[in-house]
Amino acid sequence: MPRKNAFYAQSGGVTAVINASACGVIETARKHRGQIGKVLAGRNGIIGALREELIDTGKESKAAIRGLLTTPSGAFGSCRHKLKSLQENRAEYERLIEVFRAHDIGYFFYNGGGDSADTCLKVSQLSETLGYPIQAIHVPKTIDNDLPLTDNCPGFGSVAKYVAISTREAALDVASMCETSTKVFILEVMGRHAGWIAAAAGLAAEKEGDAPHIILFPEIAFDRDRFIARVQRTVKRHGYCVIVASEGAQYADGRFLAESGLKDAFGHSQLGGLAPQLAQMVKDATGFKYHWAVADYLQRSARHIASQTDVDQAYALGEAAVELALKGHNAIMPCIVRGKGKRYSWSIGEAALDQVANVEKKMPRSYITRDGFGITEAGRAYLAPLIRGEAYPTYRNGLPRYTRLKNELVPKKLKKRFAI
Amino acid sequence: MPRKNAFYAQSGGVTAVINASACGVIETARKHRGQIGKVLAGRNGIIGALREELIDTGKESKAAIRGLLTTPSGAFGSCRHKLKSLQENRAEYERLIEVFRAHDIGYFFYNGGGDSADTCLKVSQLSETLGYPIQAIHVPKTIDNDLPLTDNCPGFGSVAKYVAISTREAALDVASMCETSTKVFILEVMGRHAGWIAAAAGLAAEKEGDAPHIILFPEIAFDRDRFIARVQRTVKRHGYCVIVASEGAQYADGRFLAESGLKDAFGHSQLGGLAPQLAQMVKDATGFKYHWAVADYLQRSARHIASQTDVDQAYALGEAAVELALKGHNAIMPCIVRGKGKRYSWSIGEAALDQVANVEKKMPRSYITRDGFGITEAGRAYLAPLIRGEAYPTYRNGLPRYTRLKNELVPKKLKKRFAI
Repeated sequence: MPRKNAFYAQSGGVTAVINASACGVIETARKHRGQIGKVLAGRNGIIGALREELIDTGKESKAAIRGLLTTPSGAFGSCRHKLKSLQENRAEYERLIEVFRAHDIGYFFYNGGGDSADTCLKVSQLSETLGYPIQAIHVPKTIDNDLPLTDNCPGFGSVAKYVAISTREAALDVASMCETSTKVFILEVMGRHAGWIAAAAGLAAEKEGDAPHIILFPEIAFDRDRFIARVQRTVKRHGYCVIVASEGAQYADGRFLAESGLKDAFGHSQLGGLAPQLAQMVKDATGFKYHWAVADYLQRSARHIASQTDVDQAYALGEAAVELALKGHNAIMPCIVRGKGKRYSWSIGEAALDQVANVEKKMPRSYITRDGFGITEAGRAYLAPLIRGEAYPTYRNGLPRYTRLKNELVPKKLKKRFAI
Repeated sequence: MPRKNAFYAQSGGVTAVINASACGVIETARKHRGQIGKVLAGRNGIIGALREELIDTGKESKAAIRGLLTTPSGAFGSCRHKLKSLQENRAEYERLIEVFRAHDIGYFFYNGGGDSADTCLKVSQLSETLGYPIQAIHVPKTIDNDLPLTDNCPGFGSVAKYVAISTREAALDVASMCETSTKVFILEVMGRHAGWIAAAAGLAAEKEGDAPHIILFPEIAFDRDRFIARVQRTVKRHGYCVIVASEGAQYADGRFLAESGLKDAFGHSQLGGLAPQLAQMVKDATGFKYHWAVADYLQRSARHIASQTDVDQAYALGEAAVELALKGHNAIMPCIVRGKGKRYSWSIGEAALDQVANVEKKMPRSYITRDGFGITEAGRAYLAPLIRGEAYPTYRNGLPRYTRLKNELVPKKLKKRFAI
């Protein structure tokens, strides 16, 4: 196999461990210099390829690349840009090929979620559709944990850990003050269509009566009266009520509770402000003193308390992506396979990209209690191992030392600019 | 000195380290069994005394008490209840004496902030005003860092650390996505009248251009036009803008930006929802895509990333309170004294309670940059040592092991109930 350069890009919402996957890709590629020349990273994701803004990761020291293992967010920049179909925007694909050819790129590693898997699949078909030979491997990443075929998605375990810990901590706060102060606390977490993140809050509870008392999942139609009744019953019984709500909580007719009417680049509805809305609902119906928090980006960037399991898997998937490419694979995604034993174990498997793209994995109903407000033992058994281990970063002066890369671009070879 | 029992209570908003002070009080008292008999903790703070709901801390194992060092929130319960003046509510004071006498209480350790210092001062005067001999020692605690005479307040350092880390992490997230997505991120933090917590976010920045780009302090009158201009300039220059806003941010006329019209038990205005309001303001003026987070209780209960300096000081102050009592002091508060050397050091000093009660320490203007949007080197030099060190709790199955006490009440000795 002739030596080729590799392109790596981060896509979509970043996570606490996507850089760990980058670290896996780059460190593994560096071990195979005979087959992989440079690893060029897209500046701000795929648009870096379209604009011919390619970061030369070879300029980064070994220590800097290792530092990615403990640095949250996307070190090369990410973007939300989904390639349209070849029919709809042929120019984009031709531009990609032009850039790939100019920089001798034969490997395409795309680190993202469901939409990105679709982009990666389209790139994997370039040999066939436009005659440019390339191997495209998707490295899974999404805090939403909604990719199919993989047991779980890197990024999710760390958000899950953050949310479970934060729920446990805030609940202790509320419990200690509820006699004379706040009785209802609402934490809004991410999860547009799948309730995985909200479900993880359920791990905070150790025994009957522990918080969270109510979890709101997108999978369960929201019923105001049942919700208020449960809040009242919980406060009566335990003195306080902790609610963890998925931003995607919705009514039976599919309207989001937090619908704002805006849409993002992918045409998804923009959400936000669910927690204050729920708080108002509780106050109007019960008069209870409330507080609410919206974790927003804090939850997905919380590298300071990342799950060791998550970091290990993120790295391993980056590593596996390169190994699969070197074995000649295309249109594939390495994935996490859970061992069958009672004790948690995992290994790396493979999934065909056309089975992954545009398929959204929802929470199994069996992970949600019959009343729709909590997680079952089956849900707990699935979630618990994913938050195990504390992968602490190193600190300097009380703050985590996160890597800053040089991010030097390789010289452009094309004269033409591409408007994007 | 005859052996007497001690009363300990937690008051006001709880923190990540108030239990570390409780640990200091109880462990130190246990070393002096000849002088201090039982340490009885008020269930839910001072109302535990009024209701004669006294927790026998002697029932807790040595390990459980040690566990308080790493457990956030108020392990005995806290409350917001400020004693009125003797003239206004003599019945409450008479009830306190009745309970203290029934349980042979000669020491009163009150762990709280400014309002609690006032209550503690009133109790310290009971010998004089109502002829009941008692020594009252205040153990400082408040995340707002607004007590006078002490260099800083236990609870603040850990919130400061949490906010600085969260700002650094979320800023990396925004920076990596801003090319095609969110350009403005707003984090709302606590701090009603003093901007100490928001100021701590400034520690996240290491060099020019780093986030946070704008800090909003209660001490600086909010000017919409200047704010919007700064947001626009920052996005133009750096591609994104991270704002950390104190919940107490206010206009020149003293109106809070987040005023809701409600008041709490102390007559303070209830705040909340500043971040979404600022976000709307930014959107209307600039059209930038935004995200916002409200940390709320997460910030003050985040024991998982508590400052070691903070934990050490909280414990030392609890310890010192008992030692001061044993030396015969009354109406006093042990406090933190910062060493004069270039290298940070601290020791325990003493402050007279009548100098502490009802005095609110604001941020010195010299800690805030001239433009009002950031912290100066002087501010940084003050804040930086307070967040040093990571006092990690131990974990089990991916979650912190926080102590649960038995909290057994001693049998009531009074027939009369007290309505509260």
